[in-house]
Amino acid sequence: MILIRNATILTQDSKRQILKNAAICIKDGRILDIGISHELEKLYKKRAKKIIDGEGRVVMPGLINTHTHLAMTLLRGYADDMPLKKWWFEKVFPFEGKLKAEDVYWGSLLGGLEMIESGTTCFVDGYFFADAIVMAVEELGLRANIGIPVLDFKCPEFESPDDALAAAEKILTKPRGAELIKFSIAPHMLQSTSLETYRKCKKLADRYKIILQTHLAETEAEVEYSRKKYKKTPVRLLVENRILDKNSLVAHVCHLTDDDVVLLAKSRVNVSHCPVSNMKLVSGLMPLKKLLNKGVNIGLGTDGACSNNNLDMFEEMKLSALVHKLAEKDPSAAEAQIILDMATINAAKAIGEEKNLGSIERGKAADIILLNFQQPHLLPDYNILSNLVYSARGNDVETAIINGQIVMENRKIQNVNENKILKIISERYNG
Amino acid sequence: MILIRNATILTQDSKRQILKNAAICIKDGRILDIGISHELEKLYKKRAKKIIDGEGRVVMPGLINTHTHLAMTLLRGYADDMPLKKWWFEKVFPFEGKLKAEDVYWGSLLGGLEMIESGTTCFVDGYFFADAIVMAVEELGLRANIGIPVLDFKCPEFESPDDALAAAEKILTKPRGAELIKFSIAPHMLQSTSLETYRKCKKLADRYKIILQTHLAETEAEVEYSRKKYKKTPVRLLVENRILDKNSLVAHVCHLTDDDVVLLAKSRVNVSHCPVSNMKLVSGLMPLKKLLNKGVNIGLGTDGACSNNNLDMFEEMKLSALVHKLAEKDPSAAEAQIILDMATINAAKAIGEEKNLGSIERGKAADIILLNFQQPHLLPDYNILSNLVYSARGNDVETAIINGQIVMENRKIQNVNENKILKIISERYNG
Repeated sequence: MILIRNATILTQDSKRQILKNAAICIKDGRILDIGISHELEKLYKKRAKKIIDGEGRVVMPGLINTHTHLAMTLLRGYADDMPLKKWWFEKVFPFEGKLKAEDVYWGSLLGGLEMIESGTTCFVDGYFFADAIVMAVEELGLRANIGIPVLDFKCPEFESPDDALAAAEKILTKPRGAELIKFSIAPHMLQSTSLETYRKCKKLADRYKIILQTHLAETEAEVEYSRKKYKKTPVRLLVENRILDKNSLVAHVCHLTDDDVVLLAKSRVNVSHCPVSNMKLVSGLMPLKKLLNKGVNIGLGTDGACSNNNLDMFEEMKLSALVHKLAEKDPSAAEAQIILDMATINAAKAIGEEKNLGSIERGKAADIILLNFQQPHLLPDYNILSNLVYSARGNDVETAIINGQIVMENRKIQNVNENKILKIISERYNG
Repeated sequence: MILIRNATILTQDSKRQILKNAAICIKDGRILDIGISHELEKLYKKRAKKIIDGEGRVVMPGLINTHTHLAMTLLRGYADDMPLKKWWFEKVFPFEGKLKAEDVYWGSLLGGLEMIESGTTCFVDGYFFADAIVMAVEELGLRANIGIPVLDFKCPEFESPDDALAAAEKILTKPRGAELIKFSIAPHMLQSTSLETYRKCKKLADRYKIILQTHLAETEAEVEYSRKKYKKTPVRLLVENRILDKNSLVAHVCHLTDDDVVLLAKSRVNVSHCPVSNMKLVSGLMPLKKLLNKGVNIGLGTDGACSNNNLDMFEEMKLSALVHKLAEKDPSAAEAQIILDMATINAAKAIGEEKNLGSIERGKAADIILLNFQQPHLLPDYNILSNLVYSARGNDVETAIINGQIVMENRKIQNVNENKILKIISERYNG
């Protein structure tokens, strides 16, 4: 039993309550109780194995990154400030062509460390060599939804889409102990994945009751490709073919017609918004306001570190708010609460986990982070929500708890030898 | 004498050299030597009073924030997500109406701590009660150019512009020991400052050989005001009236005609670019590429924490690069080196200090920061420049040296009692 006492708790519950002088009791990986600190201390203090003093700390749900490619952290700083074609063909593809499972393992460890250290406790991934990702993520104690990528081209792991689907089926039927890891099927994108392959993916997703995730309407080129080949926008194509529904998560959607927005809303498709990546690669800007107005559920994502260049969800939150204010010519657009929802409870909903994750409420999984708000850049405290979204940085996260397990305490990683990992990364991957 | 050894040094010298296994020797506030570590160690190790091990660290010039209102850190989170008029008239003006010198002192201490802790060693300010700012900044050991604001309206400190000008003259003629603080004259903006007052300011600036700084072409409303009242754009008005020249620093310039761009270039006026503030308040987006193409010198600024909400120049750098890539529809626009120049050597030039500040070179003032690059979000190290601009955060700065004095070591502030200041701020300024 863990007791966090005397803290300010940003619950993200249905009333979006912020509790002062509050406490949380964690038992068996779940939130047993939450309430006024001195009352909870009376109830649980004696039984608690670990007491964390929350004085000057803000306690909040761990952030959920709805779109990344964790192992691509290995490509941080590898392809910047260059045109998209050069980025793909001269840098990313050749690098990935040589990728092995063990590279994915080290890249996932590196990215996973970065996530924990910047307050992300759960993420949605899509990359090759899922077994290597699982190994790294389990070592770190992270929660994840790991997508098995399916492409029509030969890729570092698979010769064909059927190979990929067979591998996915093997992974999905393998007995596993850990409840922290779920899987999804991740057909890549329209230019690399045929409609037939998409259909096979959807069939598999339905059979195993997993989500289907894909890159969608990311670039103008993709929309043109779809209009030319299928006479339809990417959204209309996949909705009409029943590939997309409420069990889908589509990343980017920078280029949408008004009709696409309505279709996504009607089909209850979930969206992952990745503004930093979209700006870096000049994909475009997702129409946030239009989607919100129609009631589309949106989570926030960093994308991989080759198109970002970090996995800091705090940065993603602030930048997201700013870019939409500018685009809408409205300083009251994309307000802090909406942005934070995209990084927590709406992200949980996007992966079908809203009953388990995304807020601090009794019975939910204990995925919790503590931030030190007694720092110059987080004072005064007129508005904790505002300070969190617009002033905080990833490094302000002090302690991270996932499924009731402390994975970082006072910025010290608990489950692995961080220095050893960083040393190996420095030796193996450098300029 | 201080010796920093065994580090990676990002010099920002004229060749933009990045030196590995290098060292810097600091003496009497200046950079005595820079070179290969083992050679400098031979020369200076015995005489050095302090040796800093730079293993795994990136050493670079301290960042220069070319536009802020330091004491407005007191208004962090005080007025967010609201239309500009409401922001001004319902929140900022009423708060400022009650401001006293001691509030400015505390606000400056808070903002100054934040600056040091995020790697800024020099800043350009503009706010009331300069004596209070000076007091705070001297206690912290920061370097600053402090602007005396001049408005035609009654303001918290002055009844009239002539009062402000008289006060400025008094400050400029007062004997001072510290070489860290310089002053400038800061006529506010066209809507609050008449052309006559601008002229008086320029006269004073020339007499005392100080820079003149002002907000310029920040909003569409300002441009309309100028066109209606003076039949000219703000830039043309002030250039034609010889208010602006190479000793001027103009902040924002979001709304420029092509003619304005040429005028700024020809007159060698320096620009302070504040993208986060411009996005938050929806002022607009400065035409970076056009200005650079004409050879205008540009520094980066955060603006005050009421329009930002922090003073993190690392965030400002990344966001700046991203927003201009998106705006130009070109992933190779606003590349890392250009962005870093705006935060260092070009910023120094913008305040007439390029011979003294902005790069690590023999003879220059020792304003230096050390960042810990042995962290997950800063590996691999294919491209240190890229990691610095796109992956680093303010908190990665470990040690800060200003004019040869260590003001923060291993994130511990040296000159003041930080906890005491934060406690006072929490007690005096809260929701």
